[in-house]
Amino acid sequence: MRYAVLGTGIVGRTVAARLASLGHEVVIGTRDPEVTLARTEYAEWQSANPQVGLASFPDAARHGDVLVNATGGQVSVAALTEADAAHLDGKVLIDIANPLDFSHGFPPTLDPVDDDSLGELLQRTFPGLRVVKTLNTMNCQVMVEPARVPGEHNVFLSGEDADAKKSVRELLHSFGWPEESILDLGGIESARGTEMLLPVWLRLMGTLGHADFNFHIQGATAGD
Amino acid sequence: MRYAVLGTGIVGRTVAARLASLGHEVVIGTRDPEVTLARTEYAEWQSANPQVGLASFPDAARHGDVLVNATGGQVSVAALTEADAAHLDGKVLIDIANPLDFSHGFPPTLDPVDDDSLGELLQRTFPGLRVVKTLNTMNCQVMVEPARVPGEHNVFLSGEDADAKKSVRELLHSFGWPEESILDLGGIESARGTEMLLPVWLRLMGTLGHADFNFHIQGATAGD
Repeated sequence: MRYAVLGTGIVGRTVAARLASLGHEVVIGTRDPEVTLARTEYAEWQSANPQVGLASFPDAARHGDVLVNATGGQVSVAALTEADAAHLDGKVLIDIANPLDFSHGFPPTLDPVDDDSLGELLQRTFPGLRVVKTLNTMNCQVMVEPARVPGEHNVFLSGEDADAKKSVRELLHSFGWPEESILDLGGIESARGTEMLLPVWLRLMGTLGHADFNFHIQGATAGD
Repeated sequence: MRYAVLGTGIVGRTVAARLASLGHEVVIGTRDPEVTLARTEYAEWQSANPQVGLASFPDAARHGDVLVNATGGQVSVAALTEADAAHLDGKVLIDIANPLDFSHGFPPTLDPVDDDSLGELLQRTFPGLRVVKTLNTMNCQVMVEPARVPGEHNVFLSGEDADAKKSVRELLHSFGWPEESILDLGGIESARGTEMLLPVWLRLMGTLGHADFNFHIQGATAGD
């Protein structure tokens, strides 16, 4: 499968490397590839991961059969606007971002929050996309290697399109998520709930001193 | 111990009955006891639970060594204002409420949310109280009988006063919460995180069709 991962931060790079390791053709999308490659951190990562391409947002989106939104939540609409609607139509967008707002310092707040969500905003703004919100409730290392956290724990799905959710389930399986760990919360509106897990996640990270943890909904399945 | 449970809804009644069953002297506080007793549902519960008293907010607060806020989050400040600051000073308030706002229908939103919390609002408005936020992230049956949910799962603590949190831990133990299930997130500011769990909790209840579930932070302890 051909994937476009939008966003050059640690989340985008981690997911891109994992997808490439699974044999997919992966291109990372960014505003300006030359500027991105001028960042020492990115250049070093790129030389260690030569199988992952780097392209402008529209070129990356044209390449991808499936898109992954790993941009900062405050710039996701701008990134997808730049990607060009012609390259989005009918495609699945896996939205793993959160609308973190650092403008008031740390810890960040969320914008939108509570009566809207980034997942809904993207689905509403780009109706040609089939948005599936998932993986946004954990550290990026755990996203692609759930066994880093011992025991059972969950990943959530929100989205309007059943086929899109089915294909995302298959991708999650390939990352190592067992079928029984995937909790489908329903439509994209339920992304409000999962995005609002971030504030307690951040405080838990502070309390625990590490990020190798995840939410487990105890009592959700008969096997619990 | 003498407890005042503020609020006559299912949450207040469930916690009051459990406290009484543990041998505590419990009075439920309400705006107008006559009006409350005129409600068939309450009157029936009262005759089944004659050991629990019913009094006005100030009379209940005077009775209690420890107060439990089980009022609706939108009326909690009004209830505690009516209870009278003279009856609050130096006491522990266990805040198990959430600032659910049903004015726009279901599912409710939260008010305050994200850059403030009900826990902080109560601590700020009533500085004489020692507010401990806890138990607000689950169904009231699970609050007082955690074994309803099989396996390990967590209850969170937020608050400024170490002695108050210690006494709340002891109460949680008496409800059946093992020490290792209690996650102290720090100051009352961290109540923002736990109150923001409600939206996903509500959507999970809809998906699962029951309320006997709870959050477990997998990877939080070495034993996980």
